[in-house]
Amino acid sequence: MTMKFITSGITAPKGFTANGLFCGIKKSKKKDLSLIYSDTLSEAAGVFTTNKVKASCVVINQKLIAAGRGFGDSLAMGGAAADILGVQEKHVLIASTGVIGKLLPLTKIVQAIPDLAAGLSKAGGKEAAAGIMTTDHVAKDAAVEVVIGKTKVRIGAMTKGGGMIHPEMTLSGKHATMLCFASTDAAIELPALRAALDQAIQRTFNMISVDGDMSTNDMVVILANGAAGNKEIQNGTKEFEIFASALEGLFLALAKMMIKDAEGATKFVEISVKNAKTLQDARSIARSIASSNLVKCALFGGDPNWGRIAAAAGYSGAKHIDAWKMNVFLGKVAVMKHGNAVGKSEKKAARVMAKKNIGITVDLGLGKHGATAYACDLSTDYVIFNSAYRT
Amino acid sequence: MTMKFITSGITAPKGFTANGLFCGIKKSKKKDLSLIYSDTLSEAAGVFTTNKVKASCVVINQKLIAAGRGFGDSLAMGGAAADILGVQEKHVLIASTGVIGKLLPLTKIVQAIPDLAAGLSKAGGKEAAAGIMTTDHVAKDAAVEVVIGKTKVRIGAMTKGGGMIHPEMTLSGKHATMLCFASTDAAIELPALRAALDQAIQRTFNMISVDGDMSTNDMVVILANGAAGNKEIQNGTKEFEIFASALEGLFLALAKMMIKDAEGATKFVEISVKNAKTLQDARSIARSIASSNLVKCALFGGDPNWGRIAAAAGYSGAKHIDAWKMNVFLGKVAVMKHGNAVGKSEKKAARVMAKKNIGITVDLGLGKHGATAYACDLSTDYVIFNSAYRT
Repeated sequence: MTMKFITSGITAPKGFTANGLFCGIKKSKKKDLSLIYSDTLSEAAGVFTTNKVKASCVVINQKLIAAGRGFGDSLAMGGAAADILGVQEKHVLIASTGVIGKLLPLTKIVQAIPDLAAGLSKAGGKEAAAGIMTTDHVAKDAAVEVVIGKTKVRIGAMTKGGGMIHPEMTLSGKHATMLCFASTDAAIELPALRAALDQAIQRTFNMISVDGDMSTNDMVVILANGAAGNKEIQNGTKEFEIFASALEGLFLALAKMMIKDAEGATKFVEISVKNAKTLQDARSIARSIASSNLVKCALFGGDPNWGRIAAAAGYSGAKHIDAWKMNVFLGKVAVMKHGNAVGKSEKKAARVMAKKNIGITVDLGLGKHGATAYACDLSTDYVIFNSAYRT
Repeated sequence: MTMKFITSGITAPKGFTANGLFCGIKKSKKKDLSLIYSDTLSEAAGVFTTNKVKASCVVINQKLIAAGRGFGDSLAMGGAAADILGVQEKHVLIASTGVIGKLLPLTKIVQAIPDLAAGLSKAGGKEAAAGIMTTDHVAKDAAVEVVIGKTKVRIGAMTKGGGMIHPEMTLSGKHATMLCFASTDAAIELPALRAALDQAIQRTFNMISVDGDMSTNDMVVILANGAAGNKEIQNGTKEFEIFASALEGLFLALAKMMIKDAEGATKFVEISVKNAKTLQDARSIARSIASSNLVKCALFGGDPNWGRIAAAAGYSGAKHIDAWKMNVFLGKVAVMKHGNAVGKSEKKAARVMAKKNIGITVDLGLGKHGATAYACDLSTDYVIFNSAYRT
């Protein structure tokens, strides 16, 4: 594939501008309100938290997106933006994040929208990425370019989220507060856009875990305005595969950025499950290890405590596990073979665990399916930060 | 019911003696080997971890108990004990705990068994309870007495476990490293003993969570030797109900002791879910809240962050949740009513959260089912302890 990363973000595709500014929400006085705008009406697809307690913005956007271009809603925030931008309310999607149950200062937001809209620009992509940050230390955006037919197509995206990260999003809605907004100038039919989005999140955002807590607000939304002028991408074609792969590549880069910037994180870990009997087993085991507090404490301490990895595999809910066929590797060091400790592996394994980037591989020896999850460690800083979040 | 707690433990019932000593496993040189003995052959019932990666002692005991009084196994530890005690190998159950994958020093254990057996006594119950401690700070045992027919019957038990505690045990085997050994002098038919055990763990040990990590070793085993001389208890009778309630009362006391003594715990929390549509929903929601890292961090920090409670309810997997019917209470303080924040509740709620013992109530407003889970907070000490466990 000819996908390449370009130094840009949400405004990389033609026809998209953005902006971000401080409107009065954040005590730090950092940017706290962002706007992404497409010159022309876009197709929209979104995946949402499957948490049964959903933020109101999730509920509204789900409705808006359900019909492709959605239907109306009277929410003040979206309404104010629609007024200023001269578009219909039903063409404005809304996202928010913050302490659950704490109302946002609506007046401040509405008052800032004219300035926000007036400042829309290509360069404003960086401001927009900054405006959605909560506990993030760095703004996270990226963009890719790919050739479809003979036309260059771009996809840009920005994301945020450092805690309450354990997404399980679906087109109909599942979990994390992570927010990701993506844009593309590709012309793509709505079913293909939805399919590409669903496919792209399964091996990226839905495979990351910071703390096992699924948010009420998670969403990934993509807008496609067709400004690139390619022949419209249809579902199931070669062109679709190129687009979908590019979107997945972009999301994977952003998902890894999120884990590296997660609350309290000192380590980045890739957990690869191989030779599972089913894909579902592979995914469940990878996510279970990624979510285990004891594995994450061992990672924080640099302790090659592979028994905790085996235990987390065992309670993952996977249907097919045979400890006597299971191998576990830390980096390239085999620490468990067919259910038994590998002699003299301890020192080598400890050196792997001392690194900042760690690979854990679990080979089940039962089939041909694999999955990879991405996680950070559980540090004292995470606990300190989240025990004092609101105070 | 006339159940009363008596100041004793595993040796409270007639015909049971016990002992514990240091055989050379623990670096601290504290007691590390325990033996519980019944003068006469007992009925045995056990529930085991449902983790698909199981410790060998779990696999062996499951086999031994499968036939009520079990069948043979050649394990050296059990074999040595059988020799010294003059009983058949198949009448010896085995339990161990420790770092997964690290072999126990079998020679030291076998060499210590004669002394261990020679010291069996009623007073030795305390020694036995000390011998099974791992990261526990205090030995945990208790006993109850109840009248069945006109006969006094006693049940004693001892337990251990401070981390990797998220049990889901079943008669056929499910999860935590918690170990609990119980004894009774009641005469009770095996199906009734099994039913009472299964019933007793569902509202006690299977509703506690320290860290969400299910162990490979969890087990609760009960021996019934009939020495009290009561008319044999049959399943489904009034006598069965008295026995089962007493066993549940005993286990609840021990389950609470475990949470209060859990690794790094600074708070004890009871999470009561009320008015759920199904029992399964009530259990799932209570356990989900009990396992949420963010809720547990808020508990550590004394932050009345009820949004995290609502979010954990939402991702619990419960089928029936309607945020707009849900009420949340911290202690007696309503903090969320029908999905919305309760004004001016913050200060009162903060005072509740500052206490050592905290009650969280979630009223779903959908039905008549309830469940209670027991949890501790997630502290920096938990992380420090478990990141340095083996070093």
